[in-house]
Amino acid sequence: MRLLPKNRLESFSDGVIAIIITIMVLELKTPQGNDLDALKPLLPVFLSYVMSFLYIAIYWNNHHHLIHATKRINGSIMWANTHLLFWLSLIPFITGWIGHSRGGPWPTALYGLVLLMAAMAYTILQNAIVAAQGKDSHLAAALGSDWKGKLSLASYLAAIIVAFRHQWLADTLYVFVALLWLIPDRRIERLPDI
Amino acid sequence: MRLLPKNRLESFSDGVIAIIITIMVLELKTPQGNDLDALKPLLPVFLSYVMSFLYIAIYWNNHHHLIHATKRINGSIMWANTHLLFWLSLIPFITGWIGHSRGGPWPTALYGLVLLMAAMAYTILQNAIVAAQGKDSHLAAALGSDWKGKLSLASYLAAIIVAFRHQWLADTLYVFVALLWLIPDRRIERLPDI
Amino acid sequence: MRLLPKNRLESFSDGVIAIIITIMVLELKTPQGNDLDALKPLLPVFLSYVMSFLYIAIYWNNHHHLIHATKRINGSIMWANTHLLFWLSLIPFITGWIGHSRGGPWPTALYGLVLLMAAMAYTILQNAIVAAQGKDSHLAAALGSDWKGKLSLASYLAAIIVAFRHQWLADTLYVFVALLWLIPDRRIERLPDI
Amino acid sequence: MRLLPKNRLESFSDGVIAIIITIMVLELKTPQGNDLDALKPLLPVFLSYVMSFLYIAIYWNNHHHLIHATKRINGSIMWANTHLLFWLSLIPFITGWIGHSRGGPWPTALYGLVLLMAAMAYTILQNAIVAAQGKDSHLAAALGSDWKGKLSLASYLAAIIVAFRHQWLADTLYVFVALLWLIPDRRIERLPDI
Repeated sequence: MRLLPKNRLESFSDGVIAIIITIMVLELKTPQGNDLDALKPLLPVFLSYVMSFLYIAIYWNNHHHLIHATKRINGSIMWANTHLLFWLSLIPFITGWIGHSRGGPWPTALYGLVLLMAAMAYTILQNAIVAAQGKDSHLAAALGSDWKGKLSLASYLAAIIVAFRHQWLADTLYVFVALLWLIPDRRIERLPDI
Repeated sequence: MRLLPKNRLESFSDGVIAIIITIMVLELKTPQGNDLDALKPLLPVFLSYVMSFLYIAIYWNNHHHLIHATKRINGSIMWANTHLLFWLSLIPFITGWIGHSRGGPWPTALYGLVLLMAAMAYTILQNAIVAAQGKDSHLAAALGSDWKGKLSLASYLAAIIVAFRHQWLADTLYVFVALLWLIPDRRIERLPDI
Repeated sequence: MRLLPKNRLESFSDGVIAIIITIMVLELKTPQGNDLDALKPLLPVFLSYVMSFLYIAIYWNNHHHLIHATKRINGSIMWANTHLLFWLSLIPFITGWIGHSRGGPWPTALYGLVLLMAAMAYTILQNAIVAAQGKDSHLAAALGSDWKGKLSLASYLAAIIVAFRHQWLADTLYVFVALLWLIPDRRIERLPDI
Repeated sequence: MRLLPKNRLESFSDGVIAIIITIMVLELKTPQGNDLDALKPLLPVFLSYVMSFLYIAIYWNNHHHLIHATKRINGSIMWANTHLLFWLSLIPFITGWIGHSRGGPWPTALYGLVLLMAAMAYTILQNAIVAAQGKDSHLAAALGSDWKGKLSLASYLAAIIVAFRHQWLADTLYVFVALLWLIPDRRIERLPDI
């Protein structure tokens, strides 16, 4: 199968991710009053906005590194990428729900489910790229055991389960995974240019 | 007539398609309650979102392949492309209607009409590119009889007609065409780079 | 003064214009009912959407040709471009008003005013580019007397004035100018590559 | 640490800034009536839109110049850039508030706070780039004492403080800083290409 250049995959993904990260701010509706009290009900919406902004920024960052390590793309990579964008596109919706409901158990669990599906989609995309490049490629070596990815998946799963009993623990897990990824993926950064 | 480079046509189309695919999620309004019941009324909206996300992703995918096989563009190609973007831009509107009305006959038929017009616009764009490259070009040979395109047009037409009597059949036809195109257009992928 | 490469001016303008042309569709609110009657009140909104889509597509098309004929940009060109984007960004607002008010005299006149300001901003941008390239440049020669630009400005001005007495005449003028520009600007297309 | 190419940082930033500058226009809701009176309540919203459009255009302009002077990027630069985009993404929200509340003391002060945080984020980004290039680089020399940046920070701080007593003075300070930056950053424009 022939491979295509990657520039449009990058620019389409950049466009979609840029819109996802920006339209979330539309959930911060104009307050009714003129004073500080009018902002108070927006606080949980703002906090969930900060959290999701961070998550989407992390995805863009890692996506940037991953595609940078990819030379050309094929149909599987394109659809794996579209699949990832689909789950990311649900983040504004679930962020709005968790913000407006001030984080009940169901919104909290569903937030974890969307993050879990996005993380699985990212893993699938990663595997599709490694498959196209061969198991002995620099990228496969750089990814190694991918413990960060596995730990994230486990954390999301745990968060979904505990959301119904100990909501604060689920929230803590979401913060924990975000911090885990704030450090850019040095494994790929060290790869030679291709 | 002189030909222009294609990079801005690509980046403008990427931008418009990225926005179309993303603003549809705004139809998923924040639920009023905090529990699972609050999500139930959103289910048909969500299903129509998935369907339209898939359709727009297919269009982007095929557009990507088609323009990749195009060297330079002229005025006809630019306007044929704008015409395609116009019909795609109506998909968020009709998706919202079909979702919120839980799929009555008129929304279902109009969904088919928008898809039909978009498919015809894509065919016009394809013809404009073939016309600019000559009938003996690699692209013309790769497209061949374009049976997939013709079958899609016939399916949309059939769906519009049956929407008023057997709505489930129209829905099935929409799913059928989407699956038909999920496989990327290998004909063009096999073309040599230009 | 040093000149900058033009690629980011192009990609930022593409982004802004892509968003402007797409968010207008948000004015087409989901109809309340399930049948054809529910669409009727949307007809004037739809018609104004088609009109403005066409205008913005024309601007993108001409902008594409104009910047294609520009080698490098300076600060004046960047701000003239931003000024054009500002007036274009008001088109979704005025389109929404003209659509929802079913075209009273004030919305019709203001529509002309926004188009007039955008056209003047385009002229300023064109002049800034010619000034940077010199009056003897290919671009200056290609633009010639710019009768199309001047006729458009005069038509908008006339439309604003007649909007209060003969609204249909103002609407006709808007359609006339759009048709005038549908033909891409061959003058610039014929320029040699730079 | 290895450095990455900057093209995707540019295109992602262009996308986010293009969306931020455009979605603000959604605050200009369709007026209820058909005459000029219906526009009157929109005037403060329009004025705050013009102001924020200008600020975001200035940021894009300076960002353009700054990244133009950057050869390759690292993780610190990417996160400093994301941090800047976060604060810019709050401008549509605070613009909507200041417009709809017709500028009470709290919205006016918070407007200054968002601008202050964005300006500090820009300074951090600038420092991260200088740090990556070395203190003896052309960029470091071109930035010099960065008196414009320091004066802006001081003006925002002053505006926040006086917003509760002399609101007009705060507004004047915001206009003053915007005018200060309207002139593009010649220091960087004069740098040799890299």
